[in-house]
Amino acid sequence: MEQKLITNPAIIKLLDKYKVLWSLNHLSALAHWDLQTYMPEEGAKGRGESLAKISSLSQTLFLDKNFTSLIKISEKENLNYYEKGIIRLLNKTLKYYQNLPPEFIEEFVKTTSEATIVWQNAKEKDNFSLFEPFLEKIINLSRKKADYLGYKIHPYDVLLDEYEEGLTVKDCEIYFNSIKGPIISLLNKIKNSANYKKSHPLENEPYNLESMKNLNNKILNFLRNKKDIRIDISSHPFSTHIGPGDQRITTRYSSKDFSRPYSSLIHEFGHALYELQSEGQLDYTPISGGTSLIIHESQSRFWENFIGKSKDFINLFYKDILNLSPNFKNYTTQDIYEYLNIIRPSLIRTESDEITYHLHIIIRFEIEKELMEDKIKVKDLPRVWNEKYRAYLGVEPKNNSEGILQDVHWSYGSVGYFPTYSLGTALSTMFKFKMEKDIGNLPNLIRNKEGIEKIQAWLKQTIHQYGSAYTFSDLTKQVTKEAFNPKYLLDYLENKYNVLYQISRKL
Amino acid sequence: MEQKLITNPAIIKLLDKYKVLWSLNHLSALAHWDLQTYMPEEGAKGRGESLAKISSLSQTLFLDKNFTSLIKISEKENLNYYEKGIIRLLNKTLKYYQNLPPEFIEEFVKTTSEATIVWQNAKEKDNFSLFEPFLEKIINLSRKKADYLGYKIHPYDVLLDEYEEGLTVKDCEIYFNSIKGPIISLLNKIKNSANYKKSHPLENEPYNLESMKNLNNKILNFLRNKKDIRIDISSHPFSTHIGPGDQRITTRYSSKDFSRPYSSLIHEFGHALYELQSEGQLDYTPISGGTSLIIHESQSRFWENFIGKSKDFINLFYKDILNLSPNFKNYTTQDIYEYLNIIRPSLIRTESDEITYHLHIIIRFEIEKELMEDKIKVKDLPRVWNEKYRAYLGVEPKNNSEGILQDVHWSYGSVGYFPTYSLGTALSTMFKFKMEKDIGNLPNLIRNKEGIEKIQAWLKQTIHQYGSAYTFSDLTKQVTKEAFNPKYLLDYLENKYNVLYQISRKL
Repeated sequence: MEQKLITNPAIIKLLDKYKVLWSLNHLSALAHWDLQTYMPEEGAKGRGESLAKISSLSQTLFLDKNFTSLIKISEKENLNYYEKGIIRLLNKTLKYYQNLPPEFIEEFVKTTSEATIVWQNAKEKDNFSLFEPFLEKIINLSRKKADYLGYKIHPYDVLLDEYEEGLTVKDCEIYFNSIKGPIISLLNKIKNSANYKKSHPLENEPYNLESMKNLNNKILNFLRNKKDIRIDISSHPFSTHIGPGDQRITTRYSSKDFSRPYSSLIHEFGHALYELQSEGQLDYTPISGGTSLIIHESQSRFWENFIGKSKDFINLFYKDILNLSPNFKNYTTQDIYEYLNIIRPSLIRTESDEITYHLHIIIRFEIEKELMEDKIKVKDLPRVWNEKYRAYLGVEPKNNSEGILQDVHWSYGSVGYFPTYSLGTALSTMFKFKMEKDIGNLPNLIRNKEGIEKIQAWLKQTIHQYGSAYTFSDLTKQVTKEAFNPKYLLDYLENKYNVLYQISRKL
Repeated sequence: MEQKLITNPAIIKLLDKYKVLWSLNHLSALAHWDLQTYMPEEGAKGRGESLAKISSLSQTLFLDKNFTSLIKISEKENLNYYEKGIIRLLNKTLKYYQNLPPEFIEEFVKTTSEATIVWQNAKEKDNFSLFEPFLEKIINLSRKKADYLGYKIHPYDVLLDEYEEGLTVKDCEIYFNSIKGPIISLLNKIKNSANYKKSHPLENEPYNLESMKNLNNKILNFLRNKKDIRIDISSHPFSTHIGPGDQRITTRYSSKDFSRPYSSLIHEFGHALYELQSEGQLDYTPISGGTSLIIHESQSRFWENFIGKSKDFINLFYKDILNLSPNFKNYTTQDIYEYLNIIRPSLIRTESDEITYHLHIIIRFEIEKELMEDKIKVKDLPRVWNEKYRAYLGVEPKNNSEGILQDVHWSYGSVGYFPTYSLGTALSTMFKFKMEKDIGNLPNLIRNKEGIEKIQAWLKQTIHQYGSAYTFSDLTKQVTKEAFNPKYLLDYLENKYNVLYQISRKL
């Protein structure tokens, strides 16, 4: 008989009452997915109205004394770590709801639902001024949010904490400072190497859309042969957990450069698998699914970088890649491998390489921090953005669509989210190190379905099954037996790219 | 300045509180749409749990004294017909919620959400036994519902009333008895005419899927050139109003017989237009959108039969129809017209002709009535169904997929819905008569976009704009200046098909 993970009667009673809140979250998640995939444009206003009402309804139901008193009763009980996780997360939400007025939450949700559609439009039309008033409002609301929730040192701390429990500006600065120098110096070594290429013919190869969709479907089916996941198309690729057995990922297609839909599919699959492999007994509870954005990103980047960009994985789908268009027939596995791992400063974060990626994030971190400090204005963002790209990456956007408008996050109201991308990527290298110690080197595993299944089983066993029971730092320690350490990232990048670019190693 | 339709302060206050209920309806509608279009199969259980919780939450919020007392206060006010409509519909829901226990509603919603997926599967696999236990449960729940809501004469009256305010078994029997004889006799005349054909070559012509989708998109774009509507694919075509500016219709494609996706698109468009042309001031209120299923069906059948099946409309898209496959090139407009209007007994209701259609409905009405009376058992339905098809239509299903499993409705829990299809079709002929008196004969209007716009404007002006402010019978009287009368249907059928089959008219 399966062991029951949640047994405390007070917690069971609490979870029973929680189910209606879960249901509202479930429908809101679906509504957000739909907003970005299929909703007719004219539906934006109504959708915003509805999501706003639902979020303040969630708040009202959460703050109902019958519910909050159950939290308070439960936390005095003798709880196991799953049960403790439930209380930890409910208390986080409680603090949020107790401090933010319902009108504020309604306004925030309404604004961001509409802004998502406006952003899509602004990006398509390369027109920042369409999005500017919405972003202005979102930044103001974010500052207000920080004030409502309260902070000791920096208003941005509040926003960082929302996405990653306990993360602060200080933490981020220490981390970014520790990687910035080594990354820029590695980038320079590569730029000065004989093998450095600013461009690669594959980036301009057009692909047949149907063949590309078939390739992505085949990969997804290989990675997950179950009827609990689907791919759709959106302006910005994402993965979202709708409910038990219902995980959605999106990608986007253009006419050329197959690496974008290819990598984004595998990236989003990493997020999806984390949610899908959460222990089924946690379904409908607050601790079902990924615990933290850093851990989440460690999973997506694991699949994107270590699996999708590996020579062995390319080999598995080599024939299908050749089928993307008649032009592909002259490319070898090695060509494709080199292209997927090409290092060169570029404009779009989601298409950037493993080294410059972190510079894209540093730019966003600095901008968000200064926006929160009111040191820069929204109207100046296109200029500030372009200046930073020139300074950090030596490239400059030709237009705002490939500049300030490239990411969906701010339109959602997600300010404080970006740093987790870099931190999660760094964490993925720690997990890779540990996994290889446990079950052998990745290249040996990526050769076939059995190896891929072993990888998935290891991830389930050590990380996924726990849902959100542990915090980021507890889970990291539990898995790796040490604290978060960016040295793994730097070692990984040095080792991989010294070989790829045939750079002699430093002594 | 636009005239305000809703001005009573008590009603305005009531509507403000209603908005959260509207939001829950909005998200539930989306969740139901998704259930039938994109949801991964494994998500069915979670979706059912959520929809069940949300429906009982709606009930709780509706029955909150702060809300119900506002209804009671408002109804004593001096109200205009929009405001009266709001109170009428809220009182209908109030009665429903006051009489049905929350556990019952939860069970009903959970059962029917799951059953929709099970039905899809059962239909695909031609396996009635998969669906049987769910249908058994749904019929039992429907009987229970009738008991809870109470009835004077027949338990089926309660279910009929749910879909069409005030409709009774008696009404249906009078109506069906009045049309059954004439329809069977007209059918026999046609079957005995020299021009009767049991089959038509077009029914076996395969079409190119992409060309068919293009044709449907082109038609939809011609009928409605706005970003407030979309087409997707589902097992059973339907139209659903998600929110302001967000209307979804579905169709299905097989490999041959273009008339199915063609006619179902135009049918569902008729439903969609009714919702979309409801006065914008009624958005977010209980009286936004179609007032009654009979009126709704009068709209969908209007477009399907009088527009889509007309020679003039075929002419507008003749070139695109020829493009459906190289085989089409030998068919003339007249061939296509004759095919779309071919009369012959067949198995599938949604694909049946204008005459036998009503016999399909009579079969369902009789079965539902007898199920409610417990005179027949769910397990015997395949046999009963097939017997009735043999008796009324002289055809018999080869399997249950084209028999008892063909319609989605029972899986939703929609028992009592079918009669509105026939009644609505009859009503459409009354509206056609009146419209032609007002703006001229349809053939002259269907020739171009301007004419189609005139038709849409007439429908908006006389029917759509009012949303649900009026009941079916009040609106019918207001539009046609007389009471519902099936003679228009019989006259229409006689006139049209006597010409088409060159039958000498009765004296």
